[in-house]
Amino acid sequence: MAHKAGFVLWFTGLSGAGKTTLGIALEKRLLTKNLRVQRLDGDIVRKSLTKDLGFTVEDRKKNIERITFVTQLLAKHGVATLVSFISPFIDVRENAKKAVEEVDGKFIEVFVKASVDECIKRDTKGLYKKAIAGEIDNFTGISHPYEDPPNPDIICDTEHERIEQSVEKIMKYLIENKII
Amino acid sequence: MAHKAGFVLWFTGLSGAGKTTLGIALEKRLLTKNLRVQRLDGDIVRKSLTKDLGFTVEDRKKNIERITFVTQLLAKHGVATLVSFISPFIDVRENAKKAVEEVDGKFIEVFVKASVDECIKRDTKGLYKKAIAGEIDNFTGISHPYEDPPNPDIICDTEHERIEQSVEKIMKYLIENKII
Repeated sequence: MAHKAGFVLWFTGLSGAGKTTLGIALEKRLLTKNLRVQRLDGDIVRKSLTKDLGFTVEDRKKNIERITFVTQLLAKHGVATLVSFISPFIDVRENAKKAVEEVDGKFIEVFVKASVDECIKRDTKGLYKKAIAGEIDNFTGISHPYEDPPNPDIICDTEHERIEQSVEKIMKYLIENKII
Repeated sequence: MAHKAGFVLWFTGLSGAGKTTLGIALEKRLLTKNLRVQRLDGDIVRKSLTKDLGFTVEDRKKNIERITFVTQLLAKHGVATLVSFISPFIDVRENAKKAVEEVDGKFIEVFVKASVDECIKRDTKGLYKKAIAGEIDNFTGISHPYEDPPNPDIICDTEHERIEQSVEKIMKYLIENKII
């Protein structure tokens, strides 16, 4: 019997847009469906997988490359994988999609959308303040570009919708597309 | 319902001892049991996960650290994971064991045993020749230590047993210990 591949919710967006918050909320919902679920974000991978990496363009690409490798393996083996990284470049997100589809996984790009101004206002980790003060180089949205997804599968506009609405939107997508 | 964790066959031994050969043979057998199976070895990870790494002590440790992270995730999600790396140091193998047991996976250390002389004789990849000629630094068994596992779960003495015998030994272990 062939095993079924998993799906990947790939949350992309600015720091502070709500990617990890959404990942955590979705994880809770999907666990009630008796799925195998794995979240990946900076806090989870930085301890071992990517601890040697900084924030230069090259390091960011390496970071996502390693995440992509892990995501591909998890998707291949049927795990619902929730990936929350800024992943600012279109090409690295496309590579991730390709890798997941290569193993018959479903790749769902979720654009977690909030304006730079809104993220500066939230500044949950105090990083924007430092970036604006020039204490952090290559900070996405301030001193480093973010390439908007031209054609995301789902947009969660966290500036104008509540987290519960975003979660429902994603769950609806997964159900309507017979992914769960 | 809680999902069952997977198990890890961790093949350790010198270059040319037969770790990947055994991994491939076991993969075939385990796939007939309808398990989810993933092999990890240098050829599989070097393209992305560890492509920045060389063979210094530090890089070798990083290499196994990343492999360990991936192995832990796969074990957590029920995948039978077959890991073939020289992994010359006791402490990194112990870290891997700890990581797998942390997620309720079973960790089985398989010492793929062949003497340096035998591996030099086989020299399947022509690496020993280069190492002896001084063209490769830090080559395990030649210019870099290999720490024998003091208490492996299984020993496959590939110098004195055929591959089929080693495979049967491992399958017997898995069945007798109710791992499969």
